[in-house]
Amino acid sequence: MTSIDLNSDVGESFGRWTLGDDAAMFSSVSSANVACGFHAGDPTVIRQTCRSAAQAGVTIGAHVGYRDLAGFGRRFLDVNPAELADDVVYQIGALQALAAAEGARVRYVKPHGGLYNAIVSHTAQAGAVVDAVKSVDPGLPIMGLPGSEVLRLAEQAGLRTVTEAFADRAYNPDGTLVSRSRPGAVLHDPADVAEHVLRMATEQSVRTIDGSLLKLHADSICVHGDSPGAVAMATAVKSALAGAGISISPFA
Amino acid sequence: MTSIDLNSDVGESFGRWTLGDDAAMFSSVSSANVACGFHAGDPTVIRQTCRSAAQAGVTIGAHVGYRDLAGFGRRFLDVNPAELADDVVYQIGALQALAAAEGARVRYVKPHGGLYNAIVSHTAQAGAVVDAVKSVDPGLPIMGLPGSEVLRLAEQAGLRTVTEAFADRAYNPDGTLVSRSRPGAVLHDPADVAEHVLRMATEQSVRTIDGSLLKLHADSICVHGDSPGAVAMATAVKSALAGAGISISPFA
Amino acid sequence: MTSIDLNSDVGESFGRWTLGDDAAMFSSVSSANVACGFHAGDPTVIRQTCRSAAQAGVTIGAHVGYRDLAGFGRRFLDVNPAELADDVVYQIGALQALAAAEGARVRYVKPHGGLYNAIVSHTAQAGAVVDAVKSVDPGLPIMGLPGSEVLRLAEQAGLRTVTEAFADRAYNPDGTLVSRSRPGAVLHDPADVAEHVLRMATEQSVRTIDGSLLKLHADSICVHGDSPGAVAMATAVKSALAGAGISISPFA
Amino acid sequence: MTSIDLNSDVGESFGRWTLGDDAAMFSSVSSANVACGFHAGDPTVIRQTCRSAAQAGVTIGAHVGYRDLAGFGRRFLDVNPAELADDVVYQIGALQALAAAEGARVRYVKPHGGLYNAIVSHTAQAGAVVDAVKSVDPGLPIMGLPGSEVLRLAEQAGLRTVTEAFADRAYNPDGTLVSRSRPGAVLHDPADVAEHVLRMATEQSVRTIDGSLLKLHADSICVHGDSPGAVAMATAVKSALAGAGISISPFA
Repeated sequence: MTSIDLNSDVGESFGRWTLGDDAAMFSSVSSANVACGFHAGDPTVIRQTCRSAAQAGVTIGAHVGYRDLAGFGRRFLDVNPAELADDVVYQIGALQALAAAEGARVRYVKPHGGLYNAIVSHTAQAGAVVDAVKSVDPGLPIMGLPGSEVLRLAEQAGLRTVTEAFADRAYNPDGTLVSRSRPGAVLHDPADVAEHVLRMATEQSVRTIDGSLLKLHADSICVHGDSPGAVAMATAVKSALAGAGISISPFA
Repeated sequence: MTSIDLNSDVGESFGRWTLGDDAAMFSSVSSANVACGFHAGDPTVIRQTCRSAAQAGVTIGAHVGYRDLAGFGRRFLDVNPAELADDVVYQIGALQALAAAEGARVRYVKPHGGLYNAIVSHTAQAGAVVDAVKSVDPGLPIMGLPGSEVLRLAEQAGLRTVTEAFADRAYNPDGTLVSRSRPGAVLHDPADVAEHVLRMATEQSVRTIDGSLLKLHADSICVHGDSPGAVAMATAVKSALAGAGISISPFA
Repeated sequence: MTSIDLNSDVGESFGRWTLGDDAAMFSSVSSANVACGFHAGDPTVIRQTCRSAAQAGVTIGAHVGYRDLAGFGRRFLDVNPAELADDVVYQIGALQALAAAEGARVRYVKPHGGLYNAIVSHTAQAGAVVDAVKSVDPGLPIMGLPGSEVLRLAEQAGLRTVTEAFADRAYNPDGTLVSRSRPGAVLHDPADVAEHVLRMATEQSVRTIDGSLLKLHADSICVHGDSPGAVAMATAVKSALAGAGISISPFA
Repeated sequence: MTSIDLNSDVGESFGRWTLGDDAAMFSSVSSANVACGFHAGDPTVIRQTCRSAAQAGVTIGAHVGYRDLAGFGRRFLDVNPAELADDVVYQIGALQALAAAEGARVRYVKPHGGLYNAIVSHTAQAGAVVDAVKSVDPGLPIMGLPGSEVLRLAEQAGLRTVTEAFADRAYNPDGTLVSRSRPGAVLHDPADVAEHVLRMATEQSVRTIDGSLLKLHADSICVHGDSPGAVAMATAVKSALAGAGISISPFA
């Protein structure tokens, strides 16, 4: 492997509120999960994000979420599958038009936050996301957690799937993420994060929270963009990969 | 003239709230102004409306509005032009994706309510709407009031324009609409409305509120869909046109 | 027993959208669950509803819900308890001010829809509602399902509780409601509903879906206001109670 | 004069988005304009802000605004006066309940952003704000621009008025604010701001943009809290006032 995809959430500002340093992230990642207005991102923020991504040569994905600005799309919402599918189509279409206005295209779909977590196991909502993507463009890949319901159903439906790992999250020996409520769940030291990512990219494995090594194939690695140290972390990751002769380039 | 376009606002329900009898309107009109979610219409309502319109052979237009659900997009909002343009692109794109999921396409853009009224004279907001439509698809016509800023700028920008007249509104001798605050501004009798429309379609003129006749060319005639007598009115108009040998067919 | 409280959901219109015939319901019920703006009800609707309720001598309760206009507050939302408590305080306060502006007062709190259902068993969210009510006014009773977590915790906290039964819902032999997905779950015939209510009021029992009789004490009986036959049903209930010499009067 | 009131906008975070450093501002100001949820501030943010204000001994005011989260309440919205009044009552009531839950009270009302600017001259909207405040509590003062319609109408209605000046804004010789579009409209140097405020507090005058001195009485001075240098500026103002023997204390 001589290249790996790094993805990050961007376009999460809204109106007067700024979140993340998208410009800085664009110099480190190859894929941008752009908020679509339901959990974050207003049309002007979204369009500017598409413009910056296009200028930086970063691939644009639709970061679709629950309709919940107040909760930033992080809270499970028991929306029925048919309505969820329509919500997802709406968001992808809105992003497509704003991207096109900047000469860019939407290349993949990555569910956000509470929806991302729900469709690891919630079959009906997972199916709704798959239906939505298929109805918009069967050529659009879905990015998600390895082993999740949404990726299983996407494959069944003939969609391309993109698995991802998390640069700053600790793994259990069974490959699931350590719950955020447990100590050590989130890696904060840029050097630790860089080592974590390097192992994913070069050995396709992770060191789990109990110290063992676990095989883990990921087509893309998620680098968070909205924490205080996000830019430093992304820079450390980029630098470590460069040192190992691994380039950062889009999966798509 | 052997045919005329009738347009009506549809897709204006939202969540638990139902507005208008879209199914009935589809049997009388040829063009459907579909709400795009900012003033009315949730993704599920929008998609069902696109499906019904497609089944009825009715042309779909994007009824874009201010971001103001509480005010139904009827209140002037002093949004700056760059943001307004992005809001319009977002709405058109969302509708395009939902229409496409139902095998249909968006064929024109008609601004709604407060925005419609503002861009009769508000040059900056009118320009924003034109910029938005052009950036999405320079082939999309804009529907608006004859003589309005938005149609003037649309023509300058090389966009096709579609002029409309109102089936149930009285006109002043100078071709402007009689203000709703004045008596007689709105026609309520289906027979009066049918006669009004017939004159528009056959003579390209209207009888004004002072009784004189005024030349008025309209590519489309708007029939309101959300009033109690809307369906009866649309039926009367359809019947009167049929009696005069005029078919109802999309401008597009 | 010579009197019983009937409650109904009102104030559920929003902006351009009208729902229910509140004026008609006010002539049949004694307690009004007024929407507070999070699932339905804008400030103008809420205030007008308070005015009408006050004029009709109907007691006002705060019908607090999840922040979810698009879902009408019917979808479970996994909001954390501390935030839910604040959402509830906010809604009660807003209603209190609008009621006071019309010379009226908020006399009780009834959670709505998805929240109502969740806190039958969701202890953390139930506790949040109790905390919220207590922090606003420990004298405000909470209305809910007999045997629910929210009423259990309310009692523990020293709040007054008000149990309710449903005029148009069938009961299982264990006292739970028959799921809406099963046939016979909802009673549609005004005569059946009237008989159901009469038995609740006179015998404090219900005939369950399998035909047996079940003891059921309810301080209030909920009559739905937003279905097509709502007014006819409420009128039938009122008439049946009058025939049995039972007056309709507020629990509060 | 041995004391002056300093006020600042706080509680303007929303969900995932943080704005301003409220804790720092509380150590410099005596009055806090707390967002009420329509332009900014969710219930949890609002309650925490009330708690912090109460702990710091800072007076709480209701910073009411247009219903426009996407525009942060800065855009003029042509809402009709009756609805605007209800929107204002709703917001004040919500804040009152959250403040009360923290053992605090709302002591004044200050309109925000686009509404603040509109009711300098828009008589109907100004009257709506006055009506709203009066209907909630005729003892609540309204804070606004000296000479504005809203203060004129408030006085007519028997409400107490509180005039304010702006610490970081340049004035025209006629006492109006220099438009933000002109150079020099906003003072950025903490030393300049401190001098500006000191002159307001000690001489009740301001040096205008053409260098002349203008008499200007203000009951309170607004220090902005959401700019990058806000805290430094507030600290400089506090220090300058202390050096002149002037204490900072609430007008209320």
